[in-house]
Amino acid sequence: MKLATLRAGGRDGTLVLVSTDLTRAVPATGIAATLQTAFDSWAETAPRLQALWGQLEAGTAAGSFAFDQTACHSPLPRAYQWCDGSAYVNHVDLVRKARGAAMPESFWTDPLMYQGGSDAFLSPHEPIQMAREDYGIDFEGEVAVILDDVPMGADAATAGKAIRLLMLVNDVSLRNLIPNELAKGFGFFQSKPSSAFAPVAVTPDALGAAWDGGKLHLPLLVSLNGQPFGKANAGVDMTFDFPTLIAHAAKTRPLSAGTIIGSGTVSNRDISGGPGRPVAEGGLGYSCIAEVRMVETLLHGGARTPFLRFGDRVRIEMLDAAGASLFGAIEQSVEAYTV
Amino acid sequence: MKLATLRAGGRDGTLVLVSTDLTRAVPATGIAATLQTAFDSWAETAPRLQALWGQLEAGTAAGSFAFDQTACHSPLPRAYQWCDGSAYVNHVDLVRKARGAAMPESFWTDPLMYQGGSDAFLSPHEPIQMAREDYGIDFEGEVAVILDDVPMGADAATAGKAIRLLMLVNDVSLRNLIPNELAKGFGFFQSKPSSAFAPVAVTPDALGAAWDGGKLHLPLLVSLNGQPFGKANAGVDMTFDFPTLIAHAAKTRPLSAGTIIGSGTVSNRDISGGPGRPVAEGGLGYSCIAEVRMVETLLHGGARTPFLRFGDRVRIEMLDAAGASLFGAIEQSVEAYTV
Repeated sequence: MKLATLRAGGRDGTLVLVSTDLTRAVPATGIAATLQTAFDSWAETAPRLQALWGQLEAGTAAGSFAFDQTACHSPLPRAYQWCDGSAYVNHVDLVRKARGAAMPESFWTDPLMYQGGSDAFLSPHEPIQMAREDYGIDFEGEVAVILDDVPMGADAATAGKAIRLLMLVNDVSLRNLIPNELAKGFGFFQSKPSSAFAPVAVTPDALGAAWDGGKLHLPLLVSLNGQPFGKANAGVDMTFDFPTLIAHAAKTRPLSAGTIIGSGTVSNRDISGGPGRPVAEGGLGYSCIAEVRMVETLLHGGARTPFLRFGDRVRIEMLDAAGASLFGAIEQSVEAYTV
Repeated sequence: MKLATLRAGGRDGTLVLVSTDLTRAVPATGIAATLQTAFDSWAETAPRLQALWGQLEAGTAAGSFAFDQTACHSPLPRAYQWCDGSAYVNHVDLVRKARGAAMPESFWTDPLMYQGGSDAFLSPHEPIQMAREDYGIDFEGEVAVILDDVPMGADAATAGKAIRLLMLVNDVSLRNLIPNELAKGFGFFQSKPSSAFAPVAVTPDALGAAWDGGKLHLPLLVSLNGQPFGKANAGVDMTFDFPTLIAHAAKTRPLSAGTIIGSGTVSNRDISGGPGRPVAEGGLGYSCIAEVRMVETLLHGGARTPFLRFGDRVRIEMLDAAGASLFGAIEQSVEAYTV
């Protein structure tokens, strides 16, 4: 089953079901007005959504219409919780190496995770508006899951059973604000502005063999200004799978239905064992600009690729084995913001 | 105007209006089913709520009933955002002194703030359930505000105009998990389990002269196992007022209606200029156990007061100049949790 949220209809938009090939949609509002409403009683609501989706797939759903990704908000336009892990420890290791710091051994066994702002996500095709270019605007391509209720203290096996939907994320980051903010000790805040999610959320069963219950084994395709920038496989080098990330989040508190857990920037080691190479040089590239800058720093003593500038465009998508888009695309430009 | 949320009625409870003296209530569900629903269109909804509240105060509201604080959830049982500042820099300075570290000068001008989990708040009279005492369970008594929409980049003057309601918070903290978590660099996560809010949320106009638009000038009364523990004045030594905290939160992203901003642990300097003295010794005491432990460390070379143990009870309340409870009380015991 695939779901999306149209921007029309208030702060939480309007829930629709979307066909596998992303060409058709049908309003789900007779069952649940919004995706959060569906999550508030998922066990009862999901079978009814699934039945209507079957009709959409069969071409018999009344009121179906042509699906338009650009009319979509993020599947949850706002959420009660957005927790972002940093599961590709290779990426963290590179960050540290680039600034000459050793990474603690515990980072391979104890997940990094931060509490993100979730009250105002961007639409997948909405510009990233920012007051200043010199904040060091960057994208981060990630995979995320939306959860049903998870009890406090759930182990990974229990946690994994609460995964209801998968999504793609652009976790927008302001790199030049991060060092000072982390030095203050309280984690990210101003350095993590609103994130955006790909238009379509997908149930695990609709992902077939690519989803193994813990990781999504497909390349995350990232392009910058129309040029391929990254194609790292989200199932490779993911040190902590989603059930492990969820159990980490639930250690001291329950997680409520509709909680989003992110993977962190997808990052693969280069096949040579060295720093990852750009796509143009036969490598898998990068899911954020910060990573290529770290590699450049390691190789050349300094970063060469600039962070995003006003007018730049980033696109994040994932295709199935047959080349069809699974989640639709995040496609955002960067614009100057004025109060 | 005063509002509260009864636990009955689903994940977001049921919105009621509460009389000034906290003795009577009337359902607001004919206007807005839940407090978040009211915030989704506050400009239209608030005048209608205010009119009904006028009837409640006059004793003419149909369907009014005796108000019971123990039937309440937190005013927002779940919220789209909970950002907690650390505005009483005196408290931060003590933390640093107790571990022999100097506090950066910038802490007096650049607010500390962390993104808290907001998907599952505790009810004000609900036990704090935790798996282990040795997490170092602590309370933090704070003041908080709930906001209408705030645009990105709003200055303090604009931000201050978005304050719609005030509340009290118990920001439960797990002290023994904090050092390792902060050392990882991503801020609090497991060390900040679910918070609880006092039953009644109050509009600024109903606070009279105690609210000056930026700070709430009344003592925050904290007791532990029935003994007075703290009575620091929330309007004193608050280095960053609420408008400043809100502007900090909104620097790189908009804040959506229903966002909660916390003050951080209320903390006053001792009148002597030295470390704060316990209430029993004529001082203003403390709004969290960590602070008395820091003072003990400074005075005696080691902490003497233990963190909370299973069975302990904490109470947080604020009285007006005439001795009447403004927000009702947070009253929580600590219990062992088993999965």
